[in-house]
Amino acid sequence: MIGGVLLDLAGVLYIGSTPLPGAHEAMQKLHQAKLSTRYLTNTTRSTSVATLERLSGMGLPIAAGSLYTAPLAARRYIESQGLSPYLLVHPNLKPDFPGMGEGPHDAVLVGDAGEGFTYAHLNYAFRLLLEGAPLLAMGSNRYFKESDGFSLDVGPFVAGLEYAAGIQAKVLGKPAPEFFQAAVTDLGCEASEVVMVGDDVAADVIGGVAAGLQGVLVQTGKYRPGDENELGATNATVVADVAAAIDWIIAHR
Amino acid sequence: MIGGVLLDLAGVLYIGSTPLPGAHEAMQKLHQAKLSTRYLTNTTRSTSVATLERLSGMGLPIAAGSLYTAPLAARRYIESQGLSPYLLVHPNLKPDFPGMGEGPHDAVLVGDAGEGFTYAHLNYAFRLLLEGAPLLAMGSNRYFKESDGFSLDVGPFVAGLEYAAGIQAKVLGKPAPEFFQAAVTDLGCEASEVVMVGDDVAADVIGGVAAGLQGVLVQTGKYRPGDENELGATNATVVADVAAAIDWIIAHR
Repeated sequence: MIGGVLLDLAGVLYIGSTPLPGAHEAMQKLHQAKLSTRYLTNTTRSTSVATLERLSGMGLPIAAGSLYTAPLAARRYIESQGLSPYLLVHPNLKPDFPGMGEGPHDAVLVGDAGEGFTYAHLNYAFRLLLEGAPLLAMGSNRYFKESDGFSLDVGPFVAGLEYAAGIQAKVLGKPAPEFFQAAVTDLGCEASEVVMVGDDVAADVIGGVAAGLQGVLVQTGKYRPGDENELGATNATVVADVAAAIDWIIAHR
Repeated sequence: MIGGVLLDLAGVLYIGSTPLPGAHEAMQKLHQAKLSTRYLTNTTRSTSVATLERLSGMGLPIAAGSLYTAPLAARRYIESQGLSPYLLVHPNLKPDFPGMGEGPHDAVLVGDAGEGFTYAHLNYAFRLLLEGAPLLAMGSNRYFKESDGFSLDVGPFVAGLEYAAGIQAKVLGKPAPEFFQAAVTDLGCEASEVVMVGDDVAADVIGGVAAGLQGVLVQTGKYRPGDENELGATNATVVADVAAAIDWIIAHR
């Protein structure tokens, strides 16, 4: 029984600003099959608005309400806890955190800050952590695929800060079970009826299965040969790309 | 039986360019007691020559042959393996690696690069690691003490690169057993007859004990209350500062 679909974005539907082969047709098939879909991304180099515009510009429009991003989950968490975090994030992302980031700081929020990962910024964050500030991470992804190769994502910088301060980060995007569950609840399904499709074997597939979902790994984006060896006993499915993933889902619904 | 002493430098004898209280007297007592001493440092923001000059300038002169540094250990390893590493190190350190660092690169050497830890440099190193280049680390220290507070050392950046590429670094300074052993051999002692004195509970004390030495933790430099809780069953000694450490050694020789 498959009642709904969760799709990762970058590396599944597109790379950079180019749709991946079969992405348009896959989304049309999902629509025709009346399979409810939500989109889950840990991308933290652009706002939700920019992500929606990018998808639309590539001819892959989605409804704003179907987009679940790690920054939106982080903002909700920060507000619920009444925190005033230092934003170690990409400048492009700041509009997703209106009125936040001014000191004094009592928490550290880390995204894929890109060139914003300077020694000075990381050291400022580290000193807050030594004083007891919690470390909030918008994902633990190791790397992502750019047009010229693989690039460091937020995870390595979070791992470094955890090691330095001897603490554990709270992850607010994938693979946090709460993050998957919010989208599952919105679909009106049980977790076991929902399939998570992604190119990140750890955050998308192993994380999704750990949250009770069915997992499908696509061999596009950041996929590297051998990634499937990490799946172990997850019972996840491995397919070539998003087109094959949607065909598999429709055949198994 | 104590036949020789290994002393860490920064945080034990000085901080920045200021000797710690009791450092001069402690070194005089060591000399008068005819206790052979070697100096082991993972500092990678200055060359061996600069470290010797700094010590001399503070009235704490030591013989060049008694100084064991992580960069010198790294250089020896690189030469023995015939590697051509990318030097992710502090600009001040480059004279310790004459003729090294030009591409093409087949390894990554990481020190405390300070402001040199930019996203572009880290990402260049990461892509080499993905291609199979070994990761060589001049220490795994988490942080060090500066005059204005604690600052990130090389360890967190090594941890981040390890996490990103799914590999383990080869550590060439403390706490690598080979690094301690080279100084122990030079002292003409058995490891069990040698005391390692340091302010870094992990690299100096737990690392030294793991290499078969006796360990003494001083409560200066990067020491933070509670560090002694990490000592577990190491049977290491905890004293206030280097003066108390030398008194303890002389009383137990």
